[in-house]
Amino acid sequence: MRTVDLIQKKRDGQELTSEEIQWLIEGYATGSVPDYQMAAFAMAIYFQGMSTRETSDLTMAMVASGKQFDLSSIEGIKTDKHSTGGVGDKVTLILAPLVASFGVPVAKMSGRGLGHTGGTLDKLESIKGYQIERSEEDFIKQVQEIGLSVIGQSDDLVRADKLLYALRDVTATVDIIPLIASSVMSKKIAAGANSILLDVTVGDGAFMKTLEDAEVLSRTMVDLGKAVGRETIAVITNMSQPVGRAIGNRLEVLEALEIMQGQGREDVTHFICELAQIMLQLAGQEQDLVTIRKHLVDGQALKKFEEMVTYQGGDLEDLYRPSSADFVTDILSDDTGYIAELPALEFGLFAMRLGAGRAVKTDPLDYETGIVFDLKVGDKVEKGQRIAQIFSNEKLSTNLITEFKKNVKIGEVEVHPKEILKIIT
Amino acid sequence: MRTVDLIQKKRDGQELTSEEIQWLIEGYATGSVPDYQMAAFAMAIYFQGMSTRETSDLTMAMVASGKQFDLSSIEGIKTDKHSTGGVGDKVTLILAPLVASFGVPVAKMSGRGLGHTGGTLDKLESIKGYQIERSEEDFIKQVQEIGLSVIGQSDDLVRADKLLYALRDVTATVDIIPLIASSVMSKKIAAGANSILLDVTVGDGAFMKTLEDAEVLSRTMVDLGKAVGRETIAVITNMSQPVGRAIGNRLEVLEALEIMQGQGREDVTHFICELAQIMLQLAGQEQDLVTIRKHLVDGQALKKFEEMVTYQGGDLEDLYRPSSADFVTDILSDDTGYIAELPALEFGLFAMRLGAGRAVKTDPLDYETGIVFDLKVGDKVEKGQRIAQIFSNEKLSTNLITEFKKNVKIGEVEVHPKEILKIIT
Repeated sequence: MRTVDLIQKKRDGQELTSEEIQWLIEGYATGSVPDYQMAAFAMAIYFQGMSTRETSDLTMAMVASGKQFDLSSIEGIKTDKHSTGGVGDKVTLILAPLVASFGVPVAKMSGRGLGHTGGTLDKLESIKGYQIERSEEDFIKQVQEIGLSVIGQSDDLVRADKLLYALRDVTATVDIIPLIASSVMSKKIAAGANSILLDVTVGDGAFMKTLEDAEVLSRTMVDLGKAVGRETIAVITNMSQPVGRAIGNRLEVLEALEIMQGQGREDVTHFICELAQIMLQLAGQEQDLVTIRKHLVDGQALKKFEEMVTYQGGDLEDLYRPSSADFVTDILSDDTGYIAELPALEFGLFAMRLGAGRAVKTDPLDYETGIVFDLKVGDKVEKGQRIAQIFSNEKLSTNLITEFKKNVKIGEVEVHPKEILKIIT
Repeated sequence: MRTVDLIQKKRDGQELTSEEIQWLIEGYATGSVPDYQMAAFAMAIYFQGMSTRETSDLTMAMVASGKQFDLSSIEGIKTDKHSTGGVGDKVTLILAPLVASFGVPVAKMSGRGLGHTGGTLDKLESIKGYQIERSEEDFIKQVQEIGLSVIGQSDDLVRADKLLYALRDVTATVDIIPLIASSVMSKKIAAGANSILLDVTVGDGAFMKTLEDAEVLSRTMVDLGKAVGRETIAVITNMSQPVGRAIGNRLEVLEALEIMQGQGREDVTHFICELAQIMLQLAGQEQDLVTIRKHLVDGQALKKFEEMVTYQGGDLEDLYRPSSADFVTDILSDDTGYIAELPALEFGLFAMRLGAGRAVKTDPLDYETGIVFDLKVGDKVEKGQRIAQIFSNEKLSTNLITEFKKNVKIGEVEVHPKEILKIIT
């Protein structure tokens, strides 16, 4: 077999055999297929796509390229959750302990943020002492003992994906549905959980810009999961505005605590309860929303979260410490009306420039900076009323404040954005 | 500027600016743009094409990536010739001295063969002592003194093309017209001649499989040449069967000598005279075909060729030595009729397997092996008559002989293949 022939086959719109895909991915993972050939192959996929069978073969070849976690020694149906990325998306911080508080074991590996999107790992690392690196043994032991662990993806897992992901980032081959689907699902399958909840974000702050694309991606991933015996459900969620109130690592942890103390915004609180209901269902538990909300607001989820933080070395005192950002700037409204738009992408990039996110993978983060919104889309606003606070470690220029305000669109009509747009089973 | 943005721009079907193309090619030549990004970019061009302006910018950026030869110290209109590759294509060996015999300076850089196609350099190197490496000074001095030199492409010339050519070979991005055109023309422009004859081959033994593609490539290259003040004409020629009688390095040199002694096949003799007429025209000389043929068959072209061989260190005695191949196998016809097809690709690959060509660039060559046809398409053949001789250094298996015969198609009707299919000016 010659790599160039396989690239040409895909380029010319033909389907690759299972053997060809396995050979290619194994070669890539072990170094015999170089980056430049894989880059040409990925670009050919952009134009020619992949069949369902090819995507499935690609996914399983990626799984086979690294270590696979065996969680069978943990009793019960192990659940995992993945979001395709968003702005202000602290859902995992709350959802994981909430589901665990029902006795469903949650063994989750999370990722870091890049560009305008945040990452759960970064948020957890804003807690002093929190360790995201764990051996397989320690990870399993923790889930056995307290029913919950959120760690970083092991370096040994899905070797081919690690390489391919970095390559796609610099070759304009990120937004290709079969490659996104196989990247996500290979990691979830290798991580070993029995059931998987996929949060597929859609909107200007997400990879998927249209509901149609989100549906194709969801369907692809759900089918991939089911094909290898993992119960999988995808929930397509709105990422046209940031999730909840806060963007920025420490600020999002604080909002998560707020929600788990029953002080969160109603929309995000309700949304998380809905996701928890689906995740419990995946683990074989039927729970009504009232019971779930009770667990969320009466401290049971919070207790589980604190247990996890402590178990993984985090400092509980530091957990509740407010942001130490040097400057807090109030943004007041110039108009009266209803908040019509808060474009997630713009505010994600804004927070990135404050240091809360990374432009490139090697950028250091400022955990303390970010944005906290007082108002979200659909809320009434009076002229002079505070819309948001910006947390920064440098004094904000007037230009930056003007730019921020320009992105807050105020209209005359009350709008009610839906959080869950569609569920794909 | 970020390379990934330029890849995406091309991927999305947009036109790159001149500055963007220059930046990209300069970065590639100097190493700041890695192979994997250029591979993705090339594959995007496969699907999205390049505008005339982009192709022109790409060509000039490639020219600028290396040294440019200055031939202005040679008096007269310097002519160059390039073939897009073929089987048995010894035209340069004859055409260059023929044109030079009219006092038109021919300063030509040639390439090596790969796969089923041969290369003029390899053929010249089958002559004992012939030196293909020359400094710019020596190259110019030779053309000033004897009016003719054929050398290898300088390593300093068109750095970006050298890299891109090797990359395209392994990423299924060879057959892309704007990339072929800019590769050929950047080399011809950097090599410094005033006028350029392009021999664009078409047929199963050529890169261009259809006349339509050959026309697009020809038009693109002619326009590129003219845009920078080089008189350029493209001749689209038939590569459905091998050129002339011989395939293989030493064997083709011997056929070239035969032609320059007036002993060549009529078809190839006439064809070379036609090309010479165009090349002389490009240099400002009008010559009729009778005069040209006289130069070719009365020893004037041959004298010029011998002068060049001697000047570049070649041994004139060795020049006339027959092939030293250990085995010469006669191929006799099993049928009576007319030769209907001699597929160039098949016989090119056959000769390659005898050692006359390279599967990969690093393969060593056997200069002595190859094929000499007694008959070509259109010729009458009797059962038992010799069609060809195979020169090999290992005894041919019966299988190989059967395979050879299978590729000689004999029909009932006399066909007359045209050599020149179209001229693009």
